[in-house]
Amino acid sequence: MSTLSSLPYKGTRDFYPEDKRIQNYIFSIWRKVSESYGYEEYGAPILEPLEIYAAKSGQELANDQTYSFVDRGGRIVAIRPEMTPSICRMVALRRQELAYPARLYSIANFMRYERPQRGREREFWQLNVDIFGDDGVTAEAEIISMSDDIMKATGAKPEDYVIKINNRKLINFMMAQYLGLDAVQAQFMIKLLDRKDKISGQDFTDQATEVFGELADVGLPKVEALLNATSMADLPAEIRDSAAVAEVQELFTLLERADVKSLVFDITLMRGFDYYTGMVFEVFDTNPENNRALFGGGRYDGLVGLFGAEPISAVGVAPGGTTFLNFLQSHNLMPNINSSTDVYLSVLGDTTREATKLANEFRTNGINVELDISGRKLDRQIKNVIKKNIPFILFLGEDEVKSGVYTLKNIAKSEEYKLKFDEIVELFAVRRKGEK
Amino acid sequence: MSTLSSLPYKGTRDFYPEDKRIQNYIFSIWRKVSESYGYEEYGAPILEPLEIYAAKSGQELANDQTYSFVDRGGRIVAIRPEMTPSICRMVALRRQELAYPARLYSIANFMRYERPQRGREREFWQLNVDIFGDDGVTAEAEIISMSDDIMKATGAKPEDYVIKINNRKLINFMMAQYLGLDAVQAQFMIKLLDRKDKISGQDFTDQATEVFGELADVGLPKVEALLNATSMADLPAEIRDSAAVAEVQELFTLLERADVKSLVFDITLMRGFDYYTGMVFEVFDTNPENNRALFGGGRYDGLVGLFGAEPISAVGVAPGGTTFLNFLQSHNLMPNINSSTDVYLSVLGDTTREATKLANEFRTNGINVELDISGRKLDRQIKNVIKKNIPFILFLGEDEVKSGVYTLKNIAKSEEYKLKFDEIVELFAVRRKGEK
Repeated sequence: MSTLSSLPYKGTRDFYPEDKRIQNYIFSIWRKVSESYGYEEYGAPILEPLEIYAAKSGQELANDQTYSFVDRGGRIVAIRPEMTPSICRMVALRRQELAYPARLYSIANFMRYERPQRGREREFWQLNVDIFGDDGVTAEAEIISMSDDIMKATGAKPEDYVIKINNRKLINFMMAQYLGLDAVQAQFMIKLLDRKDKISGQDFTDQATEVFGELADVGLPKVEALLNATSMADLPAEIRDSAAVAEVQELFTLLERADVKSLVFDITLMRGFDYYTGMVFEVFDTNPENNRALFGGGRYDGLVGLFGAEPISAVGVAPGGTTFLNFLQSHNLMPNINSSTDVYLSVLGDTTREATKLANEFRTNGINVELDISGRKLDRQIKNVIKKNIPFILFLGEDEVKSGVYTLKNIAKSEEYKLKFDEIVELFAVRRKGEK
Repeated sequence: MSTLSSLPYKGTRDFYPEDKRIQNYIFSIWRKVSESYGYEEYGAPILEPLEIYAAKSGQELANDQTYSFVDRGGRIVAIRPEMTPSICRMVALRRQELAYPARLYSIANFMRYERPQRGREREFWQLNVDIFGDDGVTAEAEIISMSDDIMKATGAKPEDYVIKINNRKLINFMMAQYLGLDAVQAQFMIKLLDRKDKISGQDFTDQATEVFGELADVGLPKVEALLNATSMADLPAEIRDSAAVAEVQELFTLLERADVKSLVFDITLMRGFDYYTGMVFEVFDTNPENNRALFGGGRYDGLVGLFGAEPISAVGVAPGGTTFLNFLQSHNLMPNINSSTDVYLSVLGDTTREATKLANEFRTNGINVELDISGRKLDRQIKNVIKKNIPFILFLGEDEVKSGVYTLKNIAKSEEYKLKFDEIVELFAVRRKGEK
């Protein structure tokens, strides 16, 4: 038989313990903030019928980016490319039994067939936080406060990121009432505004002229007036006085009350998925070298209703693991994370039997112990302990067994302590308390 | 557009918060025991090339039970049906850099196209614990000790389960030397012994006769002698004196030293996967109504070598979520698990602003607070708190805002306490400590 490749499947990655530790650190931030707001964890299947993405996620995602196939029973299924349709399906199924507002979160993997690039992998991990059954701006305020708390929990300062806010209702009002565009023109204009930072000013003007057609002379100055507005007060009067702007203003008031800084109104923020119906927002890195969206979310009131239930309003946000890690690294916010193992117990001489017993006693007291059963040379063992980032090593020879006094070495500090069993248990209890 | 189905895809299940809490409880047991032995967490892709299962997992699994398909780039891939080939691939890829023995664990989901039935779902969750690079019986002893600790951590008593142990080398010796079977016959005999509890004695004899062919007169009494052996001492002398039995005896000595009870030697234990090369074991529920394997594992020294690296020895075990839950439920070992939310903060009158502030202060102090922004009736809110299994509710009216003394209600005990902010923080700090 020929040799099998040891490389991971294209666009996916292996998480060795040192990578998994970092991922778990990010997950722990997500989990802590989500639960602090009373959101409860759920889980959904890795496979879903393809049609649930075709409905509302956008053509590109459903047609070109899914890992879809026909199963052995003839059903067309897809590895989930996002969580929103799954959780809407779940809410629809238990429509009657759920307590509202339902606050739900999950941390899960997804797959999309995209060109692999920095910050984008074909298999990726995301937090999804959603609130169902709250129609007011209070729901958006809570989800955005949590997004802000997630950023703060990384150690980021308010000037390291900015939360841009817009409203789909305002976008629709702007396209139809203010710019006078029909539905097809509006779609082109939205796509154009979405890419405006990626193309030249001339290209933007040329393409905008094309969208307006005969109305270009009237339309172009209006678009310019929009783009020059850096705050709600700056907006052309007919937009400023709309109900949609009033809603955005209410949201800003609530967020300021909740002590969220780093907020800006951005009328050009469009946001990808087709299913958004109200407020949309994105968190941006302010570092000029990495000036891109970290994650975003918004209101999508129409999605639960697609599953045969009465409509239920919804607001959600979904940070991704890879962009999050890039942010932490580029801002030097990634701490050094030790192994989950507390102590490596090194057996000197013929003490295996006692070492097994001692290791089990430590374990019973909540200490994670790797027991050396390798019989390797001591310098080799110490190298391994350093490689694995285990903070302590304990040497057990016959003297230690007799005296009940153990030599515990703190690797990072290069210090050795002579301690009794109870003192070691106490030392780790104090350490764990400090980690909270 | 027609309505979408709200049911989960066939053979998969949705985990609503009350289900996810139970799953997380099981995961926490697995994680705690794995880490207490110094095993570190890793992660692997959900998709792998199909060929890595074709190699050694067994024909049935690779051909009939995988969710496999051709991706958009023409590669034949499968949703992982088990973890062992993935982790072997990962170890092979970092052959040179890893520290040995490498102790690794993961908690992940898998898919197999099987007929859904009790204790078996098409998407399922497993712990995988593996040690690489230890050739001695010490590795098996550690993995089996951990399996025993996992069972103990559920609250199970030694008489609730039994760990059956056998050895593939012993099986091979038995088939070739003792029973005189060739490779094809041996395969049939192994499959027959594996099913012996599921068929009648007469069927067993008939099928064994067929396997032996002309040698039936000599072979049948030998098989009977094997089946009558309830301990190693009972075995026919030529087997009892083999090197394989000596190895099993050494393992028993190590396990008794590590205080593992519930051990039996079972020469008829075969265990599914083709890749096992040495010791195999299975944990069984002793409840006569549920007398089946809960999980198992063994030594598989040949698998890493398939990925182009030099062979590395390996021993592993993999408990599954569904069978584990069934065990906990049928033995009444499943505790009542509260929501991750500590307090539901109910707003009375016009105190939303102060409630938002108070909720945030609690969160800063590590208390998980669901803030009511629903404006629903109080009895409806209380119903929701009970439904979600949140242990406390705090009522915030104008009097509480003025006095700084809050009414905290313990739902389970139906008791109300009047407490200041700091006292509430203290109460939850003490509670969390008690949970450890």
